[in-house]
Amino acid sequence: MAGPLRIGVAGLGTVGVGALRLLTEHADLLAKRCGRRLEVVAVSARDRSRERGVDIGAVAWHDDALGLAADPGVDVVVELIGGSQGIALELCKAAIANGKHLVTANKAMLAHHGTALAMAAEEAGVALGYEAAVAGGIPIVKALREGLAGNAISRVYGILNGTCNHILGAMRESGLDFAGALEEAQRLGYAEADPSLDIDGVDSAHKLAILASLAFGRPVDFEAVHIEGIRHIGALDIEYALELGYHIKLLGIAGLTERGLEQRVHPCMVSVDVPIAHVDGVFNAVVVEGDYIERTMFGGRGAGAGPTASAVIGDLADIARGQILPVFGIPVRELEAIPAAAMARHVGAYYIRLMVVDRPGVITDVTAALRDEQVSVEALIQRGRNPGDVVPVVLTTHETEEAAMLRALAQIARLKTVLEPPRMIRIELL
Amino acid sequence: MAGPLRIGVAGLGTVGVGALRLLTEHADLLAKRCGRRLEVVAVSARDRSRERGVDIGAVAWHDDALGLAADPGVDVVVELIGGSQGIALELCKAAIANGKHLVTANKAMLAHHGTALAMAAEEAGVALGYEAAVAGGIPIVKALREGLAGNAISRVYGILNGTCNHILGAMRESGLDFAGALEEAQRLGYAEADPSLDIDGVDSAHKLAILASLAFGRPVDFEAVHIEGIRHIGALDIEYALELGYHIKLLGIAGLTERGLEQRVHPCMVSVDVPIAHVDGVFNAVVVEGDYIERTMFGGRGAGAGPTASAVIGDLADIARGQILPVFGIPVRELEAIPAAAMARHVGAYYIRLMVVDRPGVITDVTAALRDEQVSVEALIQRGRNPGDVVPVVLTTHETEEAAMLRALAQIARLKTVLEPPRMIRIELL
Repeated sequence: MAGPLRIGVAGLGTVGVGALRLLTEHADLLAKRCGRRLEVVAVSARDRSRERGVDIGAVAWHDDALGLAADPGVDVVVELIGGSQGIALELCKAAIANGKHLVTANKAMLAHHGTALAMAAEEAGVALGYEAAVAGGIPIVKALREGLAGNAISRVYGILNGTCNHILGAMRESGLDFAGALEEAQRLGYAEADPSLDIDGVDSAHKLAILASLAFGRPVDFEAVHIEGIRHIGALDIEYALELGYHIKLLGIAGLTERGLEQRVHPCMVSVDVPIAHVDGVFNAVVVEGDYIERTMFGGRGAGAGPTASAVIGDLADIARGQILPVFGIPVRELEAIPAAAMARHVGAYYIRLMVVDRPGVITDVTAALRDEQVSVEALIQRGRNPGDVVPVVLTTHETEEAAMLRALAQIARLKTVLEPPRMIRIELL
Repeated sequence: MAGPLRIGVAGLGTVGVGALRLLTEHADLLAKRCGRRLEVVAVSARDRSRERGVDIGAVAWHDDALGLAADPGVDVVVELIGGSQGIALELCKAAIANGKHLVTANKAMLAHHGTALAMAAEEAGVALGYEAAVAGGIPIVKALREGLAGNAISRVYGILNGTCNHILGAMRESGLDFAGALEEAQRLGYAEADPSLDIDGVDSAHKLAILASLAFGRPVDFEAVHIEGIRHIGALDIEYALELGYHIKLLGIAGLTERGLEQRVHPCMVSVDVPIAHVDGVFNAVVVEGDYIERTMFGGRGAGAGPTASAVIGDLADIARGQILPVFGIPVRELEAIPAAAMARHVGAYYIRLMVVDRPGVITDVTAALRDEQVSVEALIQRGRNPGDVVPVVLTTHETEEAAMLRALAQIARLKTVLEPPRMIRIELL
């Protein structure tokens, strides 16, 4: 049996402790599977004395995470500190510079510095594993880079943020409004005290940018991702979605179109007839569309100590077995930029909800605005009557260009009988 | 760039031609992804002159597939002939004996000879790739062997046969009976002229036995798989399933229980609330339950030229990149047999449908038989009245041991008022 793979772990939060626990609990199983032992030899965290429920007495302690990168006893650095820059980024650069393999769960860092880090890793001949950065419990990075290597990928999309998926599910199941569902998610520990990275779609966008690089062989381009979160989804929208045969999901979608590469994160109406509509709670799912597989879906827990630890150890197992591949599936020098498709030129169907004064002629004004932009109405629901009072009117459209839709909405918003800003949710044909 | 990987393909049916087409169409993409070219240098099939839509003029032709195993210009043999023994098995043995890597889509052969072939391959230091043997479009072998290597697996289950899934779906959607749905599937090319391998569950069992070896680190034990097909599923059962909130799916399930390892293939009632219930048509899905991931699901096309070719090329890419791992994730000599759990000791909930004479006292007799075996009734549906005539009665039970259930059913079958053999379908809590 080969010598052990010597691991240094930076960051001992939930995930770090989960990884240490896994490596201890399954030490023998992993040795069998990898042909050598996976040994934690050093750790770094803020507070040495904190009780973590795992024994770190026997391993080297570094007050400064950068010490791990300099430690000659460490073969691979596992970065679980987080943050798109600062110490996490410094550590990763230093580890690579010192010829150490790197495993990270840091999607924000990769979304912003992924290409540069990959370049450094490939020049140094070390691995850069990041299975844990996207949909932890789902080995989607490996699937895209290896299992599906025979396919030209046309689209990859999915539920990339468990917090949002939980909130939208709770709204659907308990009729809560957004604020109530967010509060509940915070109470249950599914949402952070400052939830904006999640609910505003940024976390999903980080992951999408990484997936897009892998799927399409292009440098990571986070700036090109169109991002909308779920704050504006109302309980009424969830209700209407159900009536129309949809669930609302926050999806990240990267796809090749005639207009270039689309990368977008926003709430979507998804038919209840497709499996991803039923991926509920904090679960994630990723769908890959390729020319030979047609469509393959992967679902599982995206976050939390267990699934993330599983992903980290999957990467460590690859390194232990000597399986080191180009970070994004092809050498980083061969990645080719693909022109980004402007969101204004996106073509799709739309759900529109208006709050209008219940008065004759309102519908005519609304549909006239749509007609002026050649937006074709597919269905219109005006439920209940309440003359003179405010009632919701819901429309769905046939496929149209987003710019036309937005112009029509601006015109509609100016109508005196339309009392709130129109709500627009894209209907996604999956 | 390293020299090309030289490939010999045996069997030029749909899948073989699909693989050749992929290797041609994506030759440059694959070279980028693998760091070397994947070149088909030799083929073998029955009829050289047949028109296949791919150009094989430039490659060596072998009338005898065994010639590929002897061809010094071939690095890897791709076996796409099929059949659990005969020429396919001979070819695989010869290829390995001659130090060539092997890629196969042959689940029947692996179910019966997988352990022996793996032993030979590992002794010869060559790869044995079989991603195409299980759920083609889903890289589940790689996921189990690599991506999820950090987990102790407790259960793996799934929809492993697209033909059965299509038939059950067609019955649900169009109200067809089994014979009608089978005929339709045959007309659409989703079922073979002799469909028994599919509809009797044998094909699913082949795949399950392979998955169980990978998941649990044990030799392949096809004989231990309990197998039931879908012939006995009636249109009435599909209807009642919907009423009770279930879809009927043919699942293969391998799981560790207190009683040993269960490996079983049979129709299951699956709650409409779980994603796998919505995996329809010819799609496959596999769910892996492990201690760190909790649950991860993979869905995609299981068969057909494209997905199977994708899987074959995934294996070839691994070989081209030098990624050669133990066939079942740990060295075959370290696989350990796990005692098989007897099906009679299976514990689960059951759906029972009886065709009874509509007459006072029938229900009492039926429930008495259940009571005698301590089977607890969860629900009972006796829809419609038709005094003196034959009506269906449907029961669901709480968890019970299968042996008790079968004894109760035998007693029920003996009742004069029960006119057909009772139909039993297991309710699966997923």
